[in-house]
Amino acid sequence: MSQPERKKSKEKKPLKIEIRLSGSGGQGMILAGVILAEAAAIYEGKNAVQTQSYGPEARGGASKSEVIISDTEILYPKTSRLDYLLALNQVSCDKYARDLKDNGLLIVDQDAVEHLPIVKVVSLPLVRTAREEVGKAVTTNIVSLGALVGLSGVVSREALRKAVLSRVPKGTEKLNLKALKLGFKLADEHQDKVTEL
Amino acid sequence: MSQPERKKSKEKKPLKIEIRLSGSGGQGMILAGVILAEAAAIYEGKNAVQTQSYGPEARGGASKSEVIISDTEILYPKTSRLDYLLALNQVSCDKYARDLKDNGLLIVDQDAVEHLPIVKVVSLPLVRTAREEVGKAVTTNIVSLGALVGLSGVVSREALRKAVLSRVPKGTEKLNLKALKLGFKLADEHQDKVTEL
Repeated sequence: MSQPERKKSKEKKPLKIEIRLSGSGGQGMILAGVILAEAAAIYEGKNAVQTQSYGPEARGGASKSEVIISDTEILYPKTSRLDYLLALNQVSCDKYARDLKDNGLLIVDQDAVEHLPIVKVVSLPLVRTAREEVGKAVTTNIVSLGALVGLSGVVSREALRKAVLSRVPKGTEKLNLKALKLGFKLADEHQDKVTEL
Repeated sequence: MSQPERKKSKEKKPLKIEIRLSGSGGQGMILAGVILAEAAAIYEGKNAVQTQSYGPEARGGASKSEVIISDTEILYPKTSRLDYLLALNQVSCDKYARDLKDNGLLIVDQDAVEHLPIVKVVSLPLVRTAREEVGKAVTTNIVSLGALVGLSGVVSREALRKAVLSRVPKGTEKLNLKALKLGFKLADEHQDKVTEL
């Protein structure tokens, strides 16, 4: 089939809502998906597709159903990034929470889901430190390595120092050691400023 | 090669740390990955692999480097779930933050990354409401649909009501309408309790 020509710049982005309903077998997630899709398609005149998977994830008591609702034709029936995720158990929450869009809504069962997905974050002036304190923006990578290793301890600071010295161009050792130290310093100053997201 | 026999139950889970360094081209992410891997492998005697991608994501100025550090042999050189993610620009942060493990650490540049990834969450007593207030745990799916639609408005409550009535087994309409109303009520009561994660 030939594609119609698209005037991308003039096209309004169509509404498309992606929803996943997940729980244990027997919790009726598939019927719930069917009902939601029919509410949209039959009673509101929108386009809707409902799918469920019978792959490995359907075994072990897990149950998953997906619904896409759109005001235009739905060309691909599988979800990509979820607007809404219902998770009735911990396994579903752990497995699918990362599929949510930025600003997507996670709805969990209060009793079954005790642990919510958490990412820790720390925001550091890496580029600025390289540019203003080391004096060379090109040392951002070394400042960053210092900060990463300082915060994480994935390798020792001394091992990192040796590796930096052996790899940076001859003549830039002093500059890069300065960058590394400033990275360690950023880590030390921000160790308590790691927040949960 | 034949695989050595494994006594899974007795094996201690080996240390394996997965790190992604991401930024713009010219920020030296690949050299940073090489240095970090060498710090681990040459100066600390661990196993380390470093990879970078030259696929579509390497174009457009983006630069990405990955390092896996382990105390045992690394059988697969690509990262799966990140322990650490360095993101020096917004695009990298948006794209890769979801690859972090639960409790993984996201390190961002303070000036370049203004928007951190956010998921909204609401925790509702869905199963409990079905079991205790409707009196049938099997109506959890309908309570959940009521809560989802009540919170999201992806379809109207009336459209959902009609779709529920047309799909549930004959004789269970009253029970399921009760479940639906209790789901709407949960949504109304928790509309202000959606929190950011």
